[in-house]
Amino acid sequence: MTANISLLSIGNELLDGRTTDTNATFLGALLEQHGYSLKYCLKAADDMTDIQDALDYLTSHSDFIVVSGGLGPTSDDLTRDAIAAFCDCPLKLSEEDLLRIKKYYTERGRDFQEANKKQAYFPNGSKIISNHGGTASGFHLSHKRSIILSLPGVPREFRTMLQGDVLPILSSHFPLEQKKQKISCRLFDMPESKAAGIVTGCKLPESVQVGYRAHFPELEISLSTQDKNINLEELYSKISTQLGQEYIYTKNSSYHLPEVVHQLLLESGKTLALAESCTGGGISSVLTDYSGSSKYLRGGAVTYSNESKTTLLGVKEETLRTHGAVSHETVLEMASGARKALQADLALSVSGIAGPEGGSEEKPVGTFFIGLATANDCISRHFLFPAARDMVRTKAIYNALDLIRRYLLGLSLSGRAKD
Amino acid sequence: MTANISLLSIGNELLDGRTTDTNATFLGALLEQHGYSLKYCLKAADDMTDIQDALDYLTSHSDFIVVSGGLGPTSDDLTRDAIAAFCDCPLKLSEEDLLRIKKYYTERGRDFQEANKKQAYFPNGSKIISNHGGTASGFHLSHKRSIILSLPGVPREFRTMLQGDVLPILSSHFPLEQKKQKISCRLFDMPESKAAGIVTGCKLPESVQVGYRAHFPELEISLSTQDKNINLEELYSKISTQLGQEYIYTKNSSYHLPEVVHQLLLESGKTLALAESCTGGGISSVLTDYSGSSKYLRGGAVTYSNESKTTLLGVKEETLRTHGAVSHETVLEMASGARKALQADLALSVSGIAGPEGGSEEKPVGTFFIGLATANDCISRHFLFPAARDMVRTKAIYNALDLIRRYLLGLSLSGRAKD
Repeated sequence: MTANISLLSIGNELLDGRTTDTNATFLGALLEQHGYSLKYCLKAADDMTDIQDALDYLTSHSDFIVVSGGLGPTSDDLTRDAIAAFCDCPLKLSEEDLLRIKKYYTERGRDFQEANKKQAYFPNGSKIISNHGGTASGFHLSHKRSIILSLPGVPREFRTMLQGDVLPILSSHFPLEQKKQKISCRLFDMPESKAAGIVTGCKLPESVQVGYRAHFPELEISLSTQDKNINLEELYSKISTQLGQEYIYTKNSSYHLPEVVHQLLLESGKTLALAESCTGGGISSVLTDYSGSSKYLRGGAVTYSNESKTTLLGVKEETLRTHGAVSHETVLEMASGARKALQADLALSVSGIAGPEGGSEEKPVGTFFIGLATANDCISRHFLFPAARDMVRTKAIYNALDLIRRYLLGLSLSGRAKD
Repeated sequence: MTANISLLSIGNELLDGRTTDTNATFLGALLEQHGYSLKYCLKAADDMTDIQDALDYLTSHSDFIVVSGGLGPTSDDLTRDAIAAFCDCPLKLSEEDLLRIKKYYTERGRDFQEANKKQAYFPNGSKIISNHGGTASGFHLSHKRSIILSLPGVPREFRTMLQGDVLPILSSHFPLEQKKQKISCRLFDMPESKAAGIVTGCKLPESVQVGYRAHFPELEISLSTQDKNINLEELYSKISTQLGQEYIYTKNSSYHLPEVVHQLLLESGKTLALAESCTGGGISSVLTDYSGSSKYLRGGAVTYSNESKTTLLGVKEETLRTHGAVSHETVLEMASGARKALQADLALSVSGIAGPEGGSEEKPVGTFFIGLATANDCISRHFLFPAARDMVRTKAIYNALDLIRRYLLGLSLSGRAKD
């Protein structure tokens, strides 16, 4: 039997924009990892009626409801009262848990506060889930066909108790009969609509679900099925060939393109230099996010002004005058200049017009050039991606990284038409 | 009349842990800012029944339902179908919107895909909310006592359409009778617990609510009240003096520190050069996010290796040998070297140990130095912020920007003790 699992997150701060609900993300990923899935997530304010209404909805649509938050000591923490009222199980003091809270304070050299006594009350008949990292213990109880399980909302405590206590409770009630088969991959430079056209053309069996997730400028495609007789690897192999293997930069992983390129650079043993104009240090910044990038990154120049292109990278004034800062010629000189100045094996350069100002008829906003210098070659590519400033910059950063990926993997450096 | 507003976020990726729902946070904050509030947030999977069940619940509990996501061109995008079925308003092609989508592609030099045609269908009787930044337009329609409003889930499009189109629709249906008084400010280099202690010490009237929101490494404090007789400006003035005006970098705005520094640099007429080691181009990258940064940013050097510090910035080999790359002496030479090489009025330099490797007893992970070179002075500051790599880097970027802010405003450059 598949469990319908829901999350009810409680707290005004989740509704007024002060806090993003990361507990939902954590629970979703954890369940997915263990073969379960989350059906609904609902957020409600610190309000008796709202919480009970939410429980009413969720218990009629799911078997297992995790409630997060509202177990604190202050007057706006109402979760235990609301669950007790909803299930008609009045709150009862647990002397054992009260001792635990007192001990929690003693061990930290702090005085027990009367306000915390409230946290040792639990709905009659519920089972306590002890909290070893905070004052609020959780609890769970059955209500009609459902199980309601309440945990503190502090992310660290929520996560620890989920993994240590809740998963065993869940699997004892809803043992997994079979795991879903699942394969996912991530692509760059492949529009969602184009990928969808290709996948649809592959005519998959009906029992295979296809998911698309565009996370600009990347695209994730996932295949999943409950059907044991389906050879999902074979289907994936067919689809990935149709999509073009070169666009797929990772399979069954949650890596983004920069991390994949970081790994490839580490493995290659080659050093890299950067020369960035319109991306303003963005390539450098995403690569140095990863520990170990100092092993391959010699350094880089952010050359926003023409003078800096000349001073730092040795771009000829004549090149800038004749072809402009945004041109094949300039990125080629930027790349070879950076490679030489920083004594690197490879150098990557970008120059473009991120906008919203600076565009012309010949070179509109969204125009950018990427150059790559290696020991043997110097190549440059022209792109046009008319969009908002931050999107142009992101697209340029990713295209530059993808050029390095393609180079290191021996793939075509020219790509192909996009649509 | 107060509107009960809800959000329904649709997408498997929100339930399986791949994506955190930041649209909920944005909507909550926006409503709060305009005197409204969010009652429920519900997430549902890409499933016809689940979406309709969710709509059934939300329409019976709220007057205005914003639906986010599921308007894409692929087979798992079911929001328009589900709303059409739920409201019994069959989908109808909008020729006008189809033209808009085709134009969207043409303008970007891409071919229109048949899959996108689906996005020009809207429930009969609904009003279209045009999308100027993507292919999926939104729409809204009345159902019984409620208004259902559907928007694309891509955060950038969702946000633009919320602010530009949805707020006017909301306020035309639910005009606010009286606005809450509200003042907010944002601080840098002020721990939340310290700020809370100071504000508590100011003994505010009970009808004034104080909100704290830590958005690393910034802190926002807001004061609000429904009481017309309270002089909130006077209270704010008292509190801000106690906190220290120099820590407050903006008032009543949603600017982050980098944008404030960007504005100050534009107004100052001074040019800037950057020399970054451990921040890896991060300072440069955040400043060039803003249009117009080319007016002051001459360029920068990302000098990860010792050699690059010498080649690009002229840091003496002896300085590196004697004092190390992470030292007062090195950041001073980096700053003055960058100022000279890039012919700028000001130069900022950073060198440090972001970790997790590379720390020593003398210079543990989280150690960083910031240098500032001006026409008359060269100063450097030492910091220790032991934390995870990305936090150390962010903290170093913000401290460097704050040093420029303090310099341009004529404030103390040394700051004061933090706790």
